[in-house]
Amino acid sequence: MKVSRRSAVEPFHAMDVLADATRRRAQGRPVISMAVGQPAYPAPRAALDAARAALADGRVGYTEALGLAALRRGIADYYRAQHRVEVDPARIAVTTGSSAGFNLAFLTLFDPGDRVAIARPGYPAYRNILAALGIETIEIEVTAENDFTITPESLEAAQSVFGRLSGVLLASPANPTGTVTNRAHLKALAHYCTSNDIAFISDEIYHGLTFTGEETSALELTDDVVVINSFSKYYCMTGWRIGWMVLPDSVVRPIERLSQSLYISAPEISQLAGLAALGARDELDVHRDAYRRNRDLLATRLPEIGFSIASPMDGAFYAYVDAGRFTNDSMAFARRMLADIDVAATPGHDFDPVGGHRTMRFSFAGGYDEMVDATDRIAAWLK
Amino acid sequence: MKVSRRSAVEPFHAMDVLADATRRRAQGRPVISMAVGQPAYPAPRAALDAARAALADGRVGYTEALGLAALRRGIADYYRAQHRVEVDPARIAVTTGSSAGFNLAFLTLFDPGDRVAIARPGYPAYRNILAALGIETIEIEVTAENDFTITPESLEAAQSVFGRLSGVLLASPANPTGTVTNRAHLKALAHYCTSNDIAFISDEIYHGLTFTGEETSALELTDDVVVINSFSKYYCMTGWRIGWMVLPDSVVRPIERLSQSLYISAPEISQLAGLAALGARDELDVHRDAYRRNRDLLATRLPEIGFSIASPMDGAFYAYVDAGRFTNDSMAFARRMLADIDVAATPGHDFDPVGGHRTMRFSFAGGYDEMVDATDRIAAWLK
Repeated sequence: MKVSRRSAVEPFHAMDVLADATRRRAQGRPVISMAVGQPAYPAPRAALDAARAALADGRVGYTEALGLAALRRGIADYYRAQHRVEVDPARIAVTTGSSAGFNLAFLTLFDPGDRVAIARPGYPAYRNILAALGIETIEIEVTAENDFTITPESLEAAQSVFGRLSGVLLASPANPTGTVTNRAHLKALAHYCTSNDIAFISDEIYHGLTFTGEETSALELTDDVVVINSFSKYYCMTGWRIGWMVLPDSVVRPIERLSQSLYISAPEISQLAGLAALGARDELDVHRDAYRRNRDLLATRLPEIGFSIASPMDGAFYAYVDAGRFTNDSMAFARRMLADIDVAATPGHDFDPVGGHRTMRFSFAGGYDEMVDATDRIAAWLK
Repeated sequence: MKVSRRSAVEPFHAMDVLADATRRRAQGRPVISMAVGQPAYPAPRAALDAARAALADGRVGYTEALGLAALRRGIADYYRAQHRVEVDPARIAVTTGSSAGFNLAFLTLFDPGDRVAIARPGYPAYRNILAALGIETIEIEVTAENDFTITPESLEAAQSVFGRLSGVLLASPANPTGTVTNRAHLKALAHYCTSNDIAFISDEIYHGLTFTGEETSALELTDDVVVINSFSKYYCMTGWRIGWMVLPDSVVRPIERLSQSLYISAPEISQLAGLAALGARDELDVHRDAYRRNRDLLATRLPEIGFSIASPMDGAFYAYVDAGRFTNDSMAFARRMLADIDVAATPGHDFDPVGGHRTMRFSFAGGYDEMVDATDRIAAWLK
């Protein structure tokens, strides 16, 4: 059977590494996975209790395509409490993880041939989904010069080279750089997008995981934005596949229509657990403090080993490093590291098709002891 | 914010009816929902136990994009036991419901502008997803004359009118018609597709729910097929969002790549519960027998009320009826029925853009008492 041209997207290499790591672990090997953003901690107790309660009668069914009304109200409450903004629950769409949010946003906002700007380095699934949907990705290189974020100036420059942009997607905190885009930058970007008729998508899935600087939701600045968020990271609920979007009024019904056919609804147990998780910040902030210790460890140890830190690490839970002292082929380096010392990390190629052959991403969402063990193994291995 | 042209898909009207029904129920109204294929029964006990066990340590994480190895092996065992075919677990992809299966299959097999044949009447999400992905839907009318299924002759005719087909998607048992395509028909279709370089997608999500006739998996006949299946219907696990695909070797890696970016992985709790559900056929067959009683009731009562049965009802759990004695606008009829007597059913327009203005679909996946109550209400209302 032949396959389509559009299926020729890049692999999400982190997921390939995860699959390899899982196979090795099944063989009894002492694998430490720093490849994917998988928190070491369980879902909050309240979320687990809510899931158990949902299992009590065993009827787990389709919900409305936009999600359970109680969860949509709970998410609106979250914006009031955390960001002091009023969001009408009718503007909230519950999604099957942020993955569904990105796919729905791209399908709903962009037609084939449209151009959408993302940061390089950045999350590879953006590029891969955009490619599958026939949308052209315009990569905006983020460096110390532009505070590792997308600015109106860089968009202006991109448009003069590539032509009109239809959209911009910015993550803050960002994967893999850990950039936390400050309020003034975010405001300038939102303003530029509205003024230039560019759809602005704000990826806020690492909200709650900021170590340095102020965490701003784009909703504090504008309603003319599609916000994507998730229970995966701060809430430690990756495998539950549950997230949400906040939408401009004009986009709600198109998203609902596409969701109905593409997803039917998000998993019901996960919706109920997510609602409970919103109230578990005390428990979750303790985990954030643990990631901070991991971050401080890696920020010291990795450069000692010979990997210089290549980005801010102000938020999210990744160390993005220059591995150029050891390799010019980060894919081979990642494979060898896993094969030799059972430490899984992600080749920079995932995040940066241009310079990623000499960078690596280490997730520090694991336990502190794992971070110590992994860096010890790597140091010994590279000697 | 502007929306894309491709987001202008039809609503999945059944989901709109579900949302209305849910709102009315929240207001305390005695709603009977026959709108969506939502089994009245809980997930199997073993599935619930497996889910509880998964919650015990609370760590619910990403799995490999193609799914947990144990579940893929379990699904291979299912084919050996139920269909006497050997399927390499490496050819099995676990998906976030069959919804993900359809999206992945369409993206992987077809490029924009390609033509794919489906049955009319048929499942509306096929048409809506195909439209969003820029694929042309060719509707093959299924009637008593072609045994309510897609035949090589009808494909031949369609190709002579519309041009070369790239794919054919056939469901058996089918929604909404309940057609169970027999082995000889299925074999002829598979052979025609392979001979004519047409990708064959076999939707087997209603397997296990056959009342009349023999249930054949396309895998008994060919490896040159993409099979899509689900835990939603027979296994009573709709809201868990878990299903699977069986793929030709050449399609596995493209599906894996797209899954990595579009879905990351299916929900882990649902994967573990699904594995346990595979062993619960004794419990589940009891529910099938209950659907059979519902079916026999509706097959008698609906024509007495004035709805003639418009299709075989040999499998799945829907009565697809001609409502032409009462309406020429099935959408308005469905809204009025819900508003007046709190019975939710789906307008035929969902399944048949041509003739669906005078047809309705009633799901009989609910309880027997609900079927009695609903038909009593409808009979009194239409008098």
